[in-house]
Amino acid sequence: MKHGQIATKELAEFVRERAAIEETYSKSMSKLAKMASNGSPLGTFAPMWDVFRVSSDKLALCHLELMKKMNDLIRDINKYSEEQVKIHRKTKEEVIGTLESVQSLQVQNTHLQKAREGYHSKCVELERLRKEAVPQKELEKAELKSKKAAESFAGSIEKFNRAGGDFEQKMSESAQKFQDIEEAHLRQMKLLIKAYSHSIEDTHVQVGQVHEEFKQNVENIGIENLIQKFTEQKATGKERPGPVGFEEYLSSLVSENSKKSRAKAFRIPGLGKRDKEPDST
Amino acid sequence: MKHGQIATKELAEFVRERAAIEETYSKSMSKLAKMASNGSPLGTFAPMWDVFRVSSDKLALCHLELMKKMNDLIRDINKYSEEQVKIHRKTKEEVIGTLESVQSLQVQNTHLQKAREGYHSKCVELERLRKEAVPQKELEKAELKSKKAAESFAGSIEKFNRAGGDFEQKMSESAQKFQDIEEAHLRQMKLLIKAYSHSIEDTHVQVGQVHEEFKQNVENIGIENLIQKFTEQKATGKERPGPVGFEEYLSSLVSENSKKSRAKAFRIPGLGKRDKEPDST
Repeated sequence: MKHGQIATKELAEFVRERAAIEETYSKSMSKLAKMASNGSPLGTFAPMWDVFRVSSDKLALCHLELMKKMNDLIRDINKYSEEQVKIHRKTKEEVIGTLESVQSLQVQNTHLQKAREGYHSKCVELERLRKEAVPQKELEKAELKSKKAAESFAGSIEKFNRAGGDFEQKMSESAQKFQDIEEAHLRQMKLLIKAYSHSIEDTHVQVGQVHEEFKQNVENIGIENLIQKFTEQKATGKERPGPVGFEEYLSSLVSENSKKSRAKAFRIPGLGKRDKEPDST
Repeated sequence: MKHGQIATKELAEFVRERAAIEETYSKSMSKLAKMASNGSPLGTFAPMWDVFRVSSDKLALCHLELMKKMNDLIRDINKYSEEQVKIHRKTKEEVIGTLESVQSLQVQNTHLQKAREGYHSKCVELERLRKEAVPQKELEKAELKSKKAAESFAGSIEKFNRAGGDFEQKMSESAQKFQDIEEAHLRQMKLLIKAYSHSIEDTHVQVGQVHEEFKQNVENIGIENLIQKFTEQKATGKERPGPVGFEEYLSSLVSENSKKSRAKAFRIPGLGKRDKEPDST
């Protein structure tokens, strides 16, 4: 029973460690997502960073959820641990009679050994006296002693066997009780492990979905699409300016046509020194 | 092109961060496996710790492998990065003519603006003199100036349009070249992302297998089986000792039967003070 309580506490510690691992992983994934969101917003590759960011953020969430489920599980384990202590305390009281029968058997065993030794030593003494041809009176005295030792031995045997019978019955009942407790304990532990297993499985499925989504998103952002987006962002217009023509001086009017000529459109974004930002003209 | 190189470097950094995350996770899993292997070897639950240990060890291995694959990928990205730099250097040399045509167009534009302003100011001057009725000679002089300015303006227009034509042709060629480079770059980046994706997918499948195995192993270790193992470890024997009988003293022989009686079997492992270790007797 004592090791049952240890096992419950160790399972809680194991799950706590797993929860801590998932929390660390989740935080690292959030950091990775931030790294992706800091990816350069310029250039044709830029929109891909958003796919990385979303995926990493979702992974962080999956593992954070697993951590939460592990924490819930720890609460369940601790709750069971308390129940277990109560059951054990109650059982200890119930089997106190068995402990007494064990102690009684131990006491009777000591008496039995002493009685056996006493009987044997009296017999040895009697045999020795017989061989040495001592006076009859002394022999009779020794015979009486041997007889009394035999009676005491027989009495011890009876008491020991009675204690043994009681021990067997009580021990058998207690052993059954212990086995029932152990079975219930293992059933409970397996239920807790099943909950652990389910949570991990759920997260595994979610992580698989996040990854499938990542793959799809990468697939969906075509190369043409990226080039298109980039050119739309950087474009200065779709019409090619025509050649510049001679503008006759007509009074002080400045021809509006001249403004549409290539003369104003020759600036190449990125080449001019003023062009640090995309030009929308 | 510059942002293409930045994107490649950022992708390498992203994958490096992911590799570091997987390494940390792997190490944590190894630590968790060690924790499981330190689970109490006593009690009925003990054999379960081996299932936890094996599973955690395998998970550690899966993520370590992913880290290695990420490191291989970083090498591929760096290799591409070097190639990219070479391609860009070569391209810069190839399009130097386009840069020259841009500069030439800028110069011609400045000339064109000056010539237009010159022509217009001469026309304004001529108009003013006509209204003020100045001497004919002065008027002729102004007309000549205006005519020369018109010729200069027309010349500038011609030069500007010639530069514009050259600019258009070269710029169009270069733009196509840049687009080809960008497309090749994005193709390469997508290949690298595909490799990243594949590695993560492989690991995901492996992790799923490890978990399936864990579930099966937990399932396979039945409660009866655990109880059985425990009792086998702690058992003192299968036969119940019979009652102790009276042993008649026969010479100095000590009956061997007495040794098999319950008298020697009453010790309950775990109750005696000497019983710190399982008793195999």
